[in-house]
Amino acid sequence: MADTEGPEQEAAPEKDAAPQKEKMTLVVFSGELDRALAAFIIATTGASMGMDVTMFFTFWGLNILKKNEGPAGGRGFLRRMMNRMNRGGARRLKLSKFHMFGLGTGMMKQFMKENRMPSLDEFIVMAQDMGVKMMPCSTSCGIMGISDSLFREGTGDQAGAAYFINEARDSKVTLFI
Amino acid sequence: MADTEGPEQEAAPEKDAAPQKEKMTLVVFSGELDRALAAFIIATTGASMGMDVTMFFTFWGLNILKKNEGPAGGRGFLRRMMNRMNRGGARRLKLSKFHMFGLGTGMMKQFMKENRMPSLDEFIVMAQDMGVKMMPCSTSCGIMGISDSLFREGTGDQAGAAYFINEARDSKVTLFI
Amino acid sequence: MADTEGPEQEAAPEKDAAPQKEKMTLVVFSGELDRALAAFIIATTGASMGMDVTMFFTFWGLNILKKNEGPAGGRGFLRRMMNRMNRGGARRLKLSKFHMFGLGTGMMKQFMKENRMPSLDEFIVMAQDMGVKMMPCSTSCGIMGISDSLFREGTGDQAGAAYFINEARDSKVTLFI
Repeated sequence: MADTEGPEQEAAPEKDAAPQKEKMTLVVFSGELDRALAAFIIATTGASMGMDVTMFFTFWGLNILKKNEGPAGGRGFLRRMMNRMNRGGARRLKLSKFHMFGLGTGMMKQFMKENRMPSLDEFIVMAQDMGVKMMPCSTSCGIMGISDSLFREGTGDQAGAAYFINEARDSKVTLFI
Repeated sequence: MADTEGPEQEAAPEKDAAPQKEKMTLVVFSGELDRALAAFIIATTGASMGMDVTMFFTFWGLNILKKNEGPAGGRGFLRRMMNRMNRGGARRLKLSKFHMFGLGTGMMKQFMKENRMPSLDEFIVMAQDMGVKMMPCSTSCGIMGISDSLFREGTGDQAGAAYFINEARDSKVTLFI
Repeated sequence: MADTEGPEQEAAPEKDAAPQKEKMTLVVFSGELDRALAAFIIATTGASMGMDVTMFFTFWGLNILKKNEGPAGGRGFLRRMMNRMNRGGARRLKLSKFHMFGLGTGMMKQFMKENRMPSLDEFIVMAQDMGVKMMPCSTSCGIMGISDSLFREGTGDQAGAAYFINEARDSKVTLFI
């Protein structure tokens, strides 16, 4: 039951007669491995608690959704150059600190494996299986010249800021990560 | 209608007989171009959807509100030095990644222009025209020795954390950016 | 009164007959001095306004809770190395910008002292005295091999993401810092 509804609405029959799930909305702005992990741990935990979770990926966060293989994409020379530097793909992301030419990031991945934690790649698949919606921000995609074909399978449709705000104002938990 | 009000209050006449707008509150902590753009895209979209939007600028986020021209400000030698390095002004902000001595930041601005997106400077004016309130954090201003005269026209009054929390707890959407 | 409660629940007697406090929940992901200060200014202001504040420390944010003295900790050679580099302790944290080998960070601390602001160390003690709960994220502690003995006195029990989400969905204000 969304918290905007008064008691009168509570008596009215729901569209599908099931109680509406509580919502969680995450804006994922960052494209670093550590922040991406935080976002997916929160998203999958929320989904496992029965929440309806939407992740909205914008700016560097789009890198998380990019395929690990294939071209970097982008229309025109400058965008292709920018997208090549900003290659993305869940397996390529770096820690925001202590990346140290891959040493720190590799250590973190090793620690996660030893603790039997899923990798980011596995978290993304898990989240999709749990019904977490992952939408790329249409404005960011437009600016960077990124087309849907660059995103991994299971990525949702592009959506704008108005879509995010509409989800967020019905959500119990909204975070900017 | 704020979501803290019970059914009894709903029957009571409003101050101005108009339904109260939903609120959005953003803390803008970061002074990077990309995060500033995200904040203003969300703020202006929220305002265009009829929300009452307050942006609360703190720490590096104050740089967004600083005038593009004029002195860097600050009382005393050390603060003047710090404020000169930390010059601010919407046109001077850098990307958090790929600034590359201005090359990456310049490319991003170019991409935005080609997509007919407003610049950050234009977004700020748009937001003001739409009634978005922009308040500098009084504590940050005190620490850095920044006076109101350094902020662009249309900047709101300085306010403290208690003001922010009061707005946030009545808001449908609150983000820390 | 939590905003999920309908009018029927309002009539029911509370567990302790006192009205339930409004809640604030902060995820503290960052371990930089500036973001840590922002988190504690918001937390202590919220507590002083009568809110029930929970801070949930994860990833680099755990550094804020680490003791200023004593060993860096971690099981095994790699974790000990990582934790030594990532030493933590409230007095050791750096600004996210303008650290400049300690010069910028030192200047900021000086500015705070001149404005009679508490140091981060003092803010943490203040927050504890005001009843702010500070919980380390159990998943992060597991990955980094950090045991409770590394945290300062007054640190709460480790808790997982489900605990955070449960707090957050009852909260008036939730931020990811």
